[in-house]
Amino acid sequence: MAKERSQHIMASGKTPAENMLWGGRFTGWFFMEGQVQCADLRMAGGLDPLMLKYNASILYDKLLYKEDILGSIAFARANAKSGIISNNEFTEIERGLREVQKEWEADTFVIMPNDEDIHTANERRLSEIIGKDIAGKLHTGRSRNEQVVCDMRLWLRNQIQEIESQLVAFIEVIAARAEAEVKPPDLNSGIIMPGYTHLQRAMPVLWSQHLLSYGFYFASDLERLRETSKRVNRSPLGCGALAGNGFNIDRDMMAEELGFTGLIWNSMNAVGDRDFVTEFLQWGSMFMQHTSRWAEDLILYSSTEFSFISIADAYSTGSSLMPHKKNPDGLELLRGKAGRAFGHMAGLMMTQKGLPSTYQKDLQESWEPMLDHVKTISDSLQIANGILATLTIKPEQMRAALDPFMLATDLADYLVRKGVPFRETHYISGRCVAKSEELGIPMNELSLEQLQAIDRRFEEDVSHTFDYERSVEMRSVKGGTSRASVLEQVKVLKAMLA
Amino acid sequence: MAKERSQHIMASGKTPAENMLWGGRFTGWFFMEGQVQCADLRMAGGLDPLMLKYNASILYDKLLYKEDILGSIAFARANAKSGIISNNEFTEIERGLREVQKEWEADTFVIMPNDEDIHTANERRLSEIIGKDIAGKLHTGRSRNEQVVCDMRLWLRNQIQEIESQLVAFIEVIAARAEAEVKPPDLNSGIIMPGYTHLQRAMPVLWSQHLLSYGFYFASDLERLRETSKRVNRSPLGCGALAGNGFNIDRDMMAEELGFTGLIWNSMNAVGDRDFVTEFLQWGSMFMQHTSRWAEDLILYSSTEFSFISIADAYSTGSSLMPHKKNPDGLELLRGKAGRAFGHMAGLMMTQKGLPSTYQKDLQESWEPMLDHVKTISDSLQIANGILATLTIKPEQMRAALDPFMLATDLADYLVRKGVPFRETHYISGRCVAKSEELGIPMNELSLEQLQAIDRRFEEDVSHTFDYERSVEMRSVKGGTSRASVLEQVKVLKAMLA
Amino acid sequence: MAKERSQHIMASGKTPAENMLWGGRFTGWFFMEGQVQCADLRMAGGLDPLMLKYNASILYDKLLYKEDILGSIAFARANAKSGIISNNEFTEIERGLREVQKEWEADTFVIMPNDEDIHTANERRLSEIIGKDIAGKLHTGRSRNEQVVCDMRLWLRNQIQEIESQLVAFIEVIAARAEAEVKPPDLNSGIIMPGYTHLQRAMPVLWSQHLLSYGFYFASDLERLRETSKRVNRSPLGCGALAGNGFNIDRDMMAEELGFTGLIWNSMNAVGDRDFVTEFLQWGSMFMQHTSRWAEDLILYSSTEFSFISIADAYSTGSSLMPHKKNPDGLELLRGKAGRAFGHMAGLMMTQKGLPSTYQKDLQESWEPMLDHVKTISDSLQIANGILATLTIKPEQMRAALDPFMLATDLADYLVRKGVPFRETHYISGRCVAKSEELGIPMNELSLEQLQAIDRRFEEDVSHTFDYERSVEMRSVKGGTSRASVLEQVKVLKAMLA
Amino acid sequence: MAKERSQHIMASGKTPAENMLWGGRFTGWFFMEGQVQCADLRMAGGLDPLMLKYNASILYDKLLYKEDILGSIAFARANAKSGIISNNEFTEIERGLREVQKEWEADTFVIMPNDEDIHTANERRLSEIIGKDIAGKLHTGRSRNEQVVCDMRLWLRNQIQEIESQLVAFIEVIAARAEAEVKPPDLNSGIIMPGYTHLQRAMPVLWSQHLLSYGFYFASDLERLRETSKRVNRSPLGCGALAGNGFNIDRDMMAEELGFTGLIWNSMNAVGDRDFVTEFLQWGSMFMQHTSRWAEDLILYSSTEFSFISIADAYSTGSSLMPHKKNPDGLELLRGKAGRAFGHMAGLMMTQKGLPSTYQKDLQESWEPMLDHVKTISDSLQIANGILATLTIKPEQMRAALDPFMLATDLADYLVRKGVPFRETHYISGRCVAKSEELGIPMNELSLEQLQAIDRRFEEDVSHTFDYERSVEMRSVKGGTSRASVLEQVKVLKAMLA
Repeated sequence: MAKERSQHIMASGKTPAENMLWGGRFTGWFFMEGQVQCADLRMAGGLDPLMLKYNASILYDKLLYKEDILGSIAFARANAKSGIISNNEFTEIERGLREVQKEWEADTFVIMPNDEDIHTANERRLSEIIGKDIAGKLHTGRSRNEQVVCDMRLWLRNQIQEIESQLVAFIEVIAARAEAEVKPPDLNSGIIMPGYTHLQRAMPVLWSQHLLSYGFYFASDLERLRETSKRVNRSPLGCGALAGNGFNIDRDMMAEELGFTGLIWNSMNAVGDRDFVTEFLQWGSMFMQHTSRWAEDLILYSSTEFSFISIADAYSTGSSLMPHKKNPDGLELLRGKAGRAFGHMAGLMMTQKGLPSTYQKDLQESWEPMLDHVKTISDSLQIANGILATLTIKPEQMRAALDPFMLATDLADYLVRKGVPFRETHYISGRCVAKSEELGIPMNELSLEQLQAIDRRFEEDVSHTFDYERSVEMRSVKGGTSRASVLEQVKVLKAMLA
Repeated sequence: MAKERSQHIMASGKTPAENMLWGGRFTGWFFMEGQVQCADLRMAGGLDPLMLKYNASILYDKLLYKEDILGSIAFARANAKSGIISNNEFTEIERGLREVQKEWEADTFVIMPNDEDIHTANERRLSEIIGKDIAGKLHTGRSRNEQVVCDMRLWLRNQIQEIESQLVAFIEVIAARAEAEVKPPDLNSGIIMPGYTHLQRAMPVLWSQHLLSYGFYFASDLERLRETSKRVNRSPLGCGALAGNGFNIDRDMMAEELGFTGLIWNSMNAVGDRDFVTEFLQWGSMFMQHTSRWAEDLILYSSTEFSFISIADAYSTGSSLMPHKKNPDGLELLRGKAGRAFGHMAGLMMTQKGLPSTYQKDLQESWEPMLDHVKTISDSLQIANGILATLTIKPEQMRAALDPFMLATDLADYLVRKGVPFRETHYISGRCVAKSEELGIPMNELSLEQLQAIDRRFEEDVSHTFDYERSVEMRSVKGGTSRASVLEQVKVLKAMLA
Repeated sequence: MAKERSQHIMASGKTPAENMLWGGRFTGWFFMEGQVQCADLRMAGGLDPLMLKYNASILYDKLLYKEDILGSIAFARANAKSGIISNNEFTEIERGLREVQKEWEADTFVIMPNDEDIHTANERRLSEIIGKDIAGKLHTGRSRNEQVVCDMRLWLRNQIQEIESQLVAFIEVIAARAEAEVKPPDLNSGIIMPGYTHLQRAMPVLWSQHLLSYGFYFASDLERLRETSKRVNRSPLGCGALAGNGFNIDRDMMAEELGFTGLIWNSMNAVGDRDFVTEFLQWGSMFMQHTSRWAEDLILYSSTEFSFISIADAYSTGSSLMPHKKNPDGLELLRGKAGRAFGHMAGLMMTQKGLPSTYQKDLQESWEPMLDHVKTISDSLQIANGILATLTIKPEQMRAALDPFMLATDLADYLVRKGVPFRETHYISGRCVAKSEELGIPMNELSLEQLQAIDRRFEEDVSHTFDYERSVEMRSVKGGTSRASVLEQVKVLKAMLA
Repeated sequence: MAKERSQHIMASGKTPAENMLWGGRFTGWFFMEGQVQCADLRMAGGLDPLMLKYNASILYDKLLYKEDILGSIAFARANAKSGIISNNEFTEIERGLREVQKEWEADTFVIMPNDEDIHTANERRLSEIIGKDIAGKLHTGRSRNEQVVCDMRLWLRNQIQEIESQLVAFIEVIAARAEAEVKPPDLNSGIIMPGYTHLQRAMPVLWSQHLLSYGFYFASDLERLRETSKRVNRSPLGCGALAGNGFNIDRDMMAEELGFTGLIWNSMNAVGDRDFVTEFLQWGSMFMQHTSRWAEDLILYSSTEFSFISIADAYSTGSSLMPHKKNPDGLELLRGKAGRAFGHMAGLMMTQKGLPSTYQKDLQESWEPMLDHVKTISDSLQIANGILATLTIKPEQMRAALDPFMLATDLADYLVRKGVPFRETHYISGRCVAKSEELGIPMNELSLEQLQAIDRRFEEDVSHTFDYERSVEMRSVKGGTSRASVLEQVKVLKAMLA
C-alpha cells in the first residue's frame, strides 16, 4: 500500500515541493555528529519524501471531487456577486470546473505528484484549463480549512441520505416478515418459539415478536440518524481560515446553492469542529451494536443445537478442510464489524481529545474513519437485509423447543387469578417445577392430585394453562407478544419510517 | 472497598440464600480429586459468598430508591384498576411504600444481608410493614427486568434535566462574557488576541470570538442532550420479563403517572435495551471532548508563555515542593476526565456487543458507568462554569502577542482588491514576510519602496492594512470576528437556549 | 455519592484552604455584570468547595496508607544517611509513622477536612504526633509527584502478586480437570464433545482439549503479567518534582528497602509516566477478553439446547417472575465485565493522549481505573475458578450431540491415505454428505454400494472411519486432541506455572 | 473504493461460486410477498455479489503472498517426510510455488474472480502450473484456519523486526542528541530550559534531560516489543481446523523451517487466538501515546510563544490562505495518529469480545487493523526520527525563558541546609515569591535585607542560590538533571538497545 502511494506520487522527477501552493521558502536541516547541518543530500530542497506521503490525502479525498467542485462553484458565484471577481471570471471558473468534473467522471483525470489533496488537484487542473490568471482568483478569500470541511459535510450528508434509505428498506423487510409470519396461511397456529433471557428458555413468544424487537432498535437508529443528518448539513463556507471571510461574502446564498439547511455560526468553530463526523461514527457504532446482537441471535438460531432458521447459501460459506460445514459467515462478519465501527469512533475521539481550538492537522485523521465507516455501515445494512430477506424459518423446530417449564409463569398467574399473592404463587409454581424434575414427568403431565398435593387451590381448569398458544395470547398488552399486539406494533413501526 | 461491601452484606449470620426471592432449590457442587462433590464445607447451601457480592447491586442502585418506589406505586395502581388486586390492597401498598420512602429519606432504612438490590430491599421492607399477604401482591405480573429499566430511565431523565439546566447556565456565562467583553468600557478598543491554527499565530480575532467558538460547541451539545432525553423518557412498564404483561395492564396510565412521554413498543426490546444509557454516555463523552479542548486552550493561555488569562485561585492549587507554583488543576482535571467519560462509554459498548436479545445479566454493568457519568458531567459543568466566571483576562498581554505577520493575509487581500489574482497575492505577501525576516524589520515597518520592490502595485494606502482592529472589523461576514458579527452570534446563541 | 463526599470533607467549620500545605496566597474572583469582582460571598477565601471535592483523592487513595508510610520511612532513612536530617529525627519520624499506620489498621484514623490526599493526611497526623518541627522535615527534598507514583507502584506490585497467585490457581484447576477428565474411570471411553467452528459442529474433540484451549490463553496471560510486573516494580523515589533530588539521596538504598528491582532512570520520565498502570490495564482487559470467550462457551453449553454442562447453583440465580429459571449469572457477569475492564483502559489511554511531558493533574485520573481494575480482575478470577471447580459435565449429552457429518473430514482423509488428492477427497466427501441429506440416512449408515456409487475407491474398511473415538485418537500430533496429546499438553501447561 | 473492489473481482463472466473450493451445493432463497422463494433472478446461483466482496480478503491479504508460499512449502515438505505425499510430489509443489512467488515478485500474478483470499489464489495458480492432481495434494491435512494464522504470524514477526530496528534507530538519535547537547562546544554553559509541570515553569533542566525523558519511554517500548515478538513467533502449523493434524505431521520441523521459536500448544487455541495481533496493537497504541506526548511538547516548543525549537521545513507546511504560516504538520499528524492506532486496538478488542472459542469469521477483522497499524507505526517512527534529527534548538530562547521563581525550591533548600524544616522553608520561600511579586522585583534581586525581613536565617551566601546552572548541577542524583547524571543516563539508555 505504502509502495503504491509513493510510486503514485513520486513518479515525477521534480523536487517534491515544486508547484506546492504554500511552498518556496523551505530548506532542510539535519542533525549529525553533534551539529545541525543542511540536509541537501538527504532531502532535495523540500519535504522529506515520506513526509509528503504522510501528509497527503489525495488517495482518499479524491472520492469527494464532485463536492469539491460544487463547493468551489458556489464560492466563486458568491465572490462574483460581491464583486471581488467579475462575472466573466466566474463564468470561466465554472466552465473550467465543470470540465474538471467531467474528467473525473470519465476517469481521465491525472493526479500529479504535487496534488497533495483534492483541492490542490482540482485547482491545479483548473489553472491548466482556464489559465492561471483567472484560476488564481478561485481561492479569493477562501481557506482550505473551510473548503475541507465543506466538502466533507456535503459528501457525508449525501451518504447519510443513502444510508437512511437502506435502513428504511431493512426495517420494511422486518415489518413485512413480522406481519406475514404472525400466522402464515399454511400453519394451524402462530409461529411460536422459545423466548430467552440469560440464554435460558423463558416464555413462549411469537417469532414475529422477536423480529420486531430488533425492528424497534433500528427504528431508534433511524430517528437518531435523521437528527444527526441535520447537524451535518450546516454550511461552514465563508468562515475563512479561522476569522471569517474578509470580503463580506454572502454565506446564506452559498448555503442555499449547496443544499445546506443552516450555517455554522462561528468561524473558529467552523474550521475546528469535526463533531459532524464523530456524531455519525457514534451513530454507526451504536447501529452496528444492534446488528451484532441481531447477528448473534441468528448465529445461535442457525446452529444445529437450535435449528430455528436456515441462512441462505448466498450468505454462507463452506470449509476448506471439513466438507460438511455450512458457516454463517455473513452474520459473523456483521457481528465482527461492530468492532471495526467502534474502532473508527474510538480512534477519532482520541484524536480530538485535548486539541487546541480551530484547525489542527490532527483533524486530517477524521477522513479515513469517515470513509470506511460509511462503507462498513452501508455494506452491512445491505448484507443484513439480504440475509433477513432470504432466511428460512423452521416453525416445527421452534415449536419442538417449547418446554412446559416455560409455562411456569402462567401456572403462577393461574393462582394469582384465584387471589393468591404473587410471591406465594411464584413459590408454589417453583415447587411444581421441582416435582416435575423429581418425577421425570413433564410439568404439564402432572396429575391434578400431584398439583393439589403441592397446593390445594389448583382445580380442574389448571389444564388450560398448559397451552403455548394461550400463553402467547394472554400477553395482549401493548407491546406484548399476542398476535393483535404484534400487528399493532407493525403499524407503529411502519409509521416511524415516514 | 471490597472489604466494606462484604462487611455490609455479610453481617448477618444467616446462610446467604435465605430470604432470597428466587431461592430454595439450589445446592452446591465442587470439583476435587477428579470428582464432582457436594460443597457443603465451602459454601453453606447457597451462593458462593463472593458470588453474592459479585452479583449484588444494592450498594449503588439504592440511589434510586425513590424511582423504585414511585414505579411500584404506579404499577400497583394500574393493577388495581385492572382488578387483579383490590383497591384496598393498593391503598395498603401505597401507604407502605410511602413509609419505606420516608425511611430512606430519613436515612433510617437498614439494608439487610439478602437485599441484593433496591427492588428486593424495598419489597422486603414493605412486607415487614404491611404484611406478606398484601406485599406479596406488589410484584403481580411484573418482572424485575422491566422494573430495573423503569427505575433507570426515570432517574436518568431527572438527572438529564438537571444537567441541561447546568449546561444552559454555562452557555449563558459564555454569552454574557462574550457580549460584555466585545468592547469593555475601560478600553479604547476591542479585546483582540492572536487567533491560532496549528498553534501558530494566524490572524487577529476578538477574545469574544474565541469564547463563542466554544459557545456553539456547547449549544450543539444542548441540542443533542434534548434529543437524547426524549428517548430516555419512554416507559418499559408492562413489558414483563420479555413477553408482555399477562393481566392486560394499562401501560399508558402508568406512563402518564410517571411522566414518561411515550412507550417502548416491544416487550423483548424493552428489557434488553440499554441504548438510553449508551446514548447518554456517547453524549457525555462528546461533551467532555469539547471541555477538554476548551481546557487545553485555557491551560495554554494561563501559561507564562502566553499569559493571556489568569485562573482564579479558587480553581488552582500549589506545589508541595515548589513554592512559586500556581497550577491550573481545575482545568487539567476537566481535560483528564474526558478520558474517564470516554471510558464509561467504551466499556458499556463493549459489554453490549454481541449479546443475545432481551435481558442478559451483563447489562447490570450499565449501572455504574451511568451513575459515575452523571456525576462526572455534572461536576465538570459546574467547575467549568466556575472557572469561566472567575477567570481574569489580560488584554494588554493578548495585544502584545499580536504580530504584524498575522496581517499577511490582509496584505494579500489588499492586492486582491486591486485585481491581482489571489494566488499571486498570496505569493507576493509571502515574499514580504520573507523580506521582513531577512531584514529583521517588522513587516508593518517595511517602507513603501521596499514593498514596491517586491510588487509595484503596492501604493500609499497599503499602510492602512497594518491595523489589527481594522483586520478584525474586515471579517464582518456572518460568523466572522468583527464586533457586529460577534454581537449577532451572541443573539443567535442565546436564542438556542430557549 | 457526591453528597457523601461533601459531607465527609466539609464537616469542619474552617475555611477550606486552611491547613493546606500549598495554601495561603489564593483569593477568589468572580465575573458578574461584565466585571471581574472579588468573590468573597461565593467562596470563603479559598477553593470553590466543589473544586475541593473535584480535586481530592483521599476517598480512594487512602487505600494505600501503608505504602505511603513505608515509602516515607524509606525516604527519611535515606535522608538521614545523607545527613540532611539527623538520625534522631529519623527515629522520631519512623516512630510517628508506625503509629499512624497502627491507627489506620485499627480503623481509628480520622480524616480531616483538608486531608485532600493520603500523603497530606499522613503527614498532618505525623505532625500532630511528633510535632511540626521534626515532621516538617519528612518531605525534605521530596515531591508529591514522586511520592504518588511510588505509592501506586508499590501497591500495584503487591496486587499483581496476589492476582498472579489467583491466576496460577485457576490454571491449576483447568489442568487438573483436563487431566482427570481425559478418561474418567467410570466411563468406557473419553469424554468426547462436538468441537465447533463458526458455532457449527465441526469435528469431535475431547472435553479436556476444550478446557486446555483456554488453559493456554491464561498461561499467556500469566507470562505477560510477569513481564508487566517487572516494569511496575521500579523505583521513582529520588526523582523530585521533575528535576531530581537536590540532596544527592541514595536512590538504590530506598529501592532496595522497598523491594523495587530497579530504578526509573530519568526524573522527568518518573513523574509523568503512568505506563505501569496503562500496561496493567491493557493486560487486564486482554485477560478479561479471554474470560468473556470462556464464559460465552459455558453459557452456550449450559443452555437447554446444548446441555453439555450444569453450572453449580452457587453461581446461578433465579428469576423474580419465572419460577423455573436458573440463570448463569456468574458467567454473564464475567462476560459483561470484559467491557468494564476495557473501559478502564480506554479511558486512561485517552486521558494520557497528547499530554505534555512530566506531571499534569490529568494523571490523577489513573487512580480509580487502577483500583477498580484490580478488584474486577481479582474477583473475576475467583468467580471463574469457583465456577469451573464446581461445574458438572454431562458426557452423555456431549456424546449425543456428535453427528456423523463431523466425520466427513475423516472420510476425506480415508481416501487421502489411498492416494487421492485432498481437493478431490474433499469434494467426494461433500457428495457423501449431500447424498446422506438427500436420502435422510445418517452418513455412517450409507451402504458401501451407496458410497462406491459416489467414488469407487471406497472399500470395506471405510466403516472404521465412522468412529468418534478413533477420529479423536487420529489427531495425535503435538497439540492435537488425542488423549496422549492432551496429557502432554497438561504437562506443558503445568510447567508454565513455575 | 467499493466500486474498485467489485470491478476487480467481478470482471469475470462466470457465476461467482464457480471454482470456489468449498462451493457447489449452495442455492439462493428470497423472502417476498410473505413467502420464501428461490432467488435465481437476484443471485446467479451462488453468493450475493455484495456478500462475495464483504467476505473477500484478497485485496489486502495478497500482501502476504510470500509468507503464504513459504508456509505451504514447509507444510508440503513435512507431508512428504511423513509419507502422505511423495518426494516427487513435494518437489513439484515446491517448484510450482516458487514460480508463483516469482509472478508476485514480478507483479505479473493475475487475481481471478474467485480468488477470495491469498490462499485460494496461490493454490489456484499452483494447480494451473503443476496440474490439479499434484496441486490438489498441497492442502492435505491442512486447514485454512491454521494457514491464515501461520501467514499472519510470519508476516507480523518480520514487520516487528523492521519496526524494532527503526525504534532502535530513533532512540539512538535521542541518545546522540542528548549526549552532544549536554554542553555543546560553542556554548559557555549547558543548554538549560525551563522544566514544566502542569505547563507551568517549574525548575531549570537540561534540554538533554528532556530528550532523555522520552528516550526512556521509548526504551520501555522496545523492551515490550521484544516480549511481544516472542509470542507472535509461535507456530500454529499442524493444528488443523481445530482438532489437530490427522497425519501426525512433524510440527517442530515446520516451525524450524519457518523460523518460529516455539509451538502453539493446543489446536483449538491455535485457530481461535488473535492475541498476537491484539498484543501488537496494544503495544503500538501505547507507543503512539508516547509519540503524541512528545509531539505535543515539540508543538508547544515550536510555537512563537515558546520558541525553543524550530522544526525543519522538511516536516512543516504552509497555509493556503495565510502566507506567513509555517505549521508543524508532521508533529500534528504524529499526535493525531495516536487516535488511529488506538482505534485499531479498540476495534479489534471489541470484535473479539465474547466470541465462542476456536475460529469465527469475525476474526477476519483482525487483518486490516494489523496491516494499517504496522504502516502507521513504521511511518510514524521514521517521521519522528526525521523530525528529531533535523530540528534546530534555540538555546538563547530557552535561557531567556528561565525565571528566578524557578529557583524558589533552591531557595527553600538553602534554608533546609541550615536546618530549617522543609515545610517551614517552603512557606518562607513562598513568602519571598509573594514579596517579589508585590514589589515587582525579580526574586533574585531582592536585597538581603528584604529577604531577612522575611526570615532572619537568610545570609550573604543566599546569592549563590540564584544560579540556574548551579540549580541544575545540584540535581546530581541518579536520573537527575545534572550533566553527569545525564551522561550516565545516556549510557544506560544505549545499553538498553543491545
